[in-house]
Amino acid sequence: MRTLKLTLAYDGTNYAGWQRQADQPTIQARVEDAVAEIEGRRVPTQGAGRTDAGVHALGQVASLRLHHQIEAPALTRALNAKLPCDIRVLGVDEVAPGFHARFSAVGKTYRYRLFLGTVLSPFESRYVWHVPQRLDVAAMQAAGDHLCGRHDFAAFQAAASEGGPASTVRTLRAVQVGLEPVPAPTAAIGVTPSDVAIVEVSGDGFLRHMVRTIVGTLVEVGAGRWSIEDVGAALRSHRREHAGPTAPASGLFLVGVDYP
Amino acid sequence: MRTLKLTLAYDGTNYAGWQRQADQPTIQARVEDAVAEIEGRRVPTQGAGRTDAGVHALGQVASLRLHHQIEAPALTRALNAKLPCDIRVLGVDEVAPGFHARFSAVGKTYRYRLFLGTVLSPFESRYVWHVPQRLDVAAMQAAGDHLCGRHDFAAFQAAASEGGPASTVRTLRAVQVGLEPVPAPTAAIGVTPSDVAIVEVSGDGFLRHMVRTIVGTLVEVGAGRWSIEDVGAALRSHRREHAGPTAPASGLFLVGVDYP
Repeated sequence: MRTLKLTLAYDGTNYAGWQRQADQPTIQARVEDAVAEIEGRRVPTQGAGRTDAGVHALGQVASLRLHHQIEAPALTRALNAKLPCDIRVLGVDEVAPGFHARFSAVGKTYRYRLFLGTVLSPFESRYVWHVPQRLDVAAMQAAGDHLCGRHDFAAFQAAASEGGPASTVRTLRAVQVGLEPVPAPTAAIGVTPSDVAIVEVSGDGFLRHMVRTIVGTLVEVGAGRWSIEDVGAALRSHRREHAGPTAPASGLFLVGVDYP
Repeated sequence: MRTLKLTLAYDGTNYAGWQRQADQPTIQARVEDAVAEIEGRRVPTQGAGRTDAGVHALGQVASLRLHHQIEAPALTRALNAKLPCDIRVLGVDEVAPGFHARFSAVGKTYRYRLFLGTVLSPFESRYVWHVPQRLDVAAMQAAGDHLCGRHDFAAFQAAASEGGPASTVRTLRAVQVGLEPVPAPTAAIGVTPSDVAIVEVSGDGFLRHMVRTIVGTLVEVGAGRWSIEDVGAALRSHRREHAGPTAPASGLFLVGVDYP
């Protein structure tokens, strides 16, 4: 029995998230279907992060155990031949038997894309949150720095998660706010580099909707409606209704997962 | 009666091309529907180029005549509110009464994108032709230079167009072959800058499928299967079957249209 680590990229637009569900298309179900065709039986996979409906991945990680002896590069090709083109296996690695994509992870990085231009590019609409105004990126960075460190992020999780038994303490290692270099397909249509802002966050783990709530809060700061003190007060309140709105799923990308 | 020039961007994936058709979704039909809601009657539009099914635009131009006195910026906003998000009006200009998007045009520029990496990014699949091999970009440039100038491009038009009465002489002003800077959403998944090659062509006009046949031919050269002499012989033959294959629509973008 081999233990394998799959690195995956996907466009989440057409899926109800990573995790298998009874009646909805999910990334996990598509990946497990493709693996089953090769292994000849259903093989459970573990995803590092349960990306929500519409959330994308540039470097999701999944683990699984396989009997089949197909070599890693051939397995990558075989899976991609069976998967739809909006899900791609970027690579397959042989790992130690104890490896578990979720429990072995020590950190994750997410990127959030904001389209600031007046007219939303037709090539960007599935991959951004359209916030058609100038944002104060420096103020957003200062607010992001304020959230860094080890905190109880109860105010920054999905409302439905409140009151759960699990710890809501997480360490946010870095928040970087900046402007993205202009994406190539839109370079000729008057999209200037400052039309796309990026919020990239790294930490030891994230609560449900935590990145999207951080982004929704930072946009309040960038738009001048909230001060950095407001952000600190929201964090200390531990109450979801004191943080900013949840940014839409379309702008969110799981960039990568760290292992020891 | 005002004459207006619309500049449009669209993702052509879900459309049967620009030109209105009886039973298929087209860009022109969507634009005319949106204009009709404002003007209160159907208003015919003229597109500068009849982009085929699946072809995209960064700067298509359409002309129309309107009674309504709505100002240009408000018209841009109103049309975008009515159009689906894969079609956007980038701007509206007041132009002289004789302006016609197609007949007034003196030149067009198209861009074609080739994805050369082994694994096709899920964010690129609708916007490229996947040619998973290294291509000799310098040889492609030399072949492109060889096609520049005023020629009978009968060998480079859609097979069904052969034998038509219209002239097949066109002036190809420039062909530029190069590598694209890495598109932002894929930067973190190991897509290197050399994974996307670009063929950009400018000329006074293009026959049906001409850009896609030029690209199909240049890829033969880049892959080492054709020499530059083969390209010259194909051009001189005036026969479609002597040129390379027609590259798929997904990689093609109408970048812009030139007017005097």
